[in-house]
Amino acid sequence: MKIGIVGLGLIGGSLGLDLRDRGLKVLGVSRQSQTCQKAVERGVVDEASQDLALLKESEIIFICTPIGLILPVLQDLIPLINPETVITDVGSVKAPIVDQCSPLWPNFVGGHPMAGTAEQGIDAAQRDLFVGRSYVLTSTDHTPLVALRKVEEIARSLGAIIEICPPEIHDQAVAWISHLPVMISASLIDACMSERETIVLQWAQKFASSGFRDTSRVGGGNPELGMMMAQYNKTAVLRSLMQYRQSLDQFINYIEQDNWETLEQLLKSTQQVRNQFLD
Amino acid sequence: MKIGIVGLGLIGGSLGLDLRDRGLKVLGVSRQSQTCQKAVERGVVDEASQDLALLKESEIIFICTPIGLILPVLQDLIPLINPETVITDVGSVKAPIVDQCSPLWPNFVGGHPMAGTAEQGIDAAQRDLFVGRSYVLTSTDHTPLVALRKVEEIARSLGAIIEICPPEIHDQAVAWISHLPVMISASLIDACMSERETIVLQWAQKFASSGFRDTSRVGGGNPELGMMMAQYNKTAVLRSLMQYRQSLDQFINYIEQDNWETLEQLLKSTQQVRNQFLD
Repeated sequence: MKIGIVGLGLIGGSLGLDLRDRGLKVLGVSRQSQTCQKAVERGVVDEASQDLALLKESEIIFICTPIGLILPVLQDLIPLINPETVITDVGSVKAPIVDQCSPLWPNFVGGHPMAGTAEQGIDAAQRDLFVGRSYVLTSTDHTPLVALRKVEEIARSLGAIIEICPPEIHDQAVAWISHLPVMISASLIDACMSERETIVLQWAQKFASSGFRDTSRVGGGNPELGMMMAQYNKTAVLRSLMQYRQSLDQFINYIEQDNWETLEQLLKSTQQVRNQFLD
Repeated sequence: MKIGIVGLGLIGGSLGLDLRDRGLKVLGVSRQSQTCQKAVERGVVDEASQDLALLKESEIIFICTPIGLILPVLQDLIPLINPETVITDVGSVKAPIVDQCSPLWPNFVGGHPMAGTAEQGIDAAQRDLFVGRSYVLTSTDHTPLVALRKVEEIARSLGAIIEICPPEIHDQAVAWISHLPVMISASLIDACMSERETIVLQWAQKFASSGFRDTSRVGGGNPELGMMMAQYNKTAVLRSLMQYRQSLDQFINYIEQDNWETLEQLLKSTQQVRNQFLD
């Protein structure tokens, strides 16, 4: 079976390494000739090209580009491939992608392997990146079951945990646990930098340790990815941000009003509730 | 030299282990007889008692209780000890402690070893907890230099990096990098739980991974400690929270207005600026 991959970064590259390990023939397309060369050298793909025509006989194609390029890549692929080809993507937002791609290509299955790292690009590609991680596949009334099963089988072979979920629910859920954290974490860094007393800022920089490190981590991540999360998942991200601001105001109010007992109760409940997310 | 420690939890207990390793005689006081017993068994102290009178011949006394008990413990110690005894504390807020304790005991030196872990209590006490961590000592116009040097010498012997800083500056700096993160992280957990669509909440709980884990970590920490940070450092914490809300509103505005270019610029600057805190 021939598998096509468009976009040979962290996710596309790691996918290539694993699929070749499982004996599949992997064909890769990148816009950059240097990436194509590296992909072949590192054994990420069997063949690489800057031309999508390389993928014309692939049974399944993974589009692993940044979110904004998924639709244009699909449009460019359509004249080249046969209608049985299953196309899937790995974007971290699903509803707008599925809404745009499914009408153009019935055998489209939205996907989101939840396997990011701090690194980007083909140099960050690694074997077994997906082992034990959630790999979300979206299902709508129009998703052909046979196409869903094909992507599911491959994702399962990577060692991932398959989760099948409607695109809109996926987007609202990841707004809470992935996109909202980026915005509030970046706001922390931005707020710290607004300190006008130089001496306070200098000591803050000196004192910063694990608490600041962890809370600010995702706010110091890939800016393009953060921006695209907000852009493509705007409604759900704003919905979470508005609710977050209410929670924040509640903390501020308790502190302003010296309502320490209620503040401690609230912190007890957040301590307990966190375990429901991370068990 | 005899060293006294009041409060045999994570910090007091770890301090005892290290100081005994360095050949000092360590006397410990805890309110609970069980903790006294454990402290002797585990070699945290040479002798332990529930009675502060045990410490009457100590050259230096470390008060390692929760913040709210530092002043009462000092008041109880005063009739028992001689005026040369140096007293220091390990509370994470300094100005209110120093303001209250220094007039009562001229040989008082405020201290804050920045060496927390997720664990609490004597069972969490460990050797070398302070190695390579900042140990802040506060200095005011009234702090006797000889007292400051005595505490400094001991803190340095633990392998800590000594930082000397006015109490108010310390409090504003830790509001940014320690206390504010607790409030915004706890607000994240609280906001997630406000999700009324059960199916979205369930998927969010299932999808939560490293981004949520890191951003929510300090918000799921010790509720009593979080409450006391806000209570004792109220002015600085509110000041940071107000500025944080402005930063957050800026992110919300850019998203509402589809101002993606500016949002990406802002995320680029937070990515860069974070390195100034964590080098």
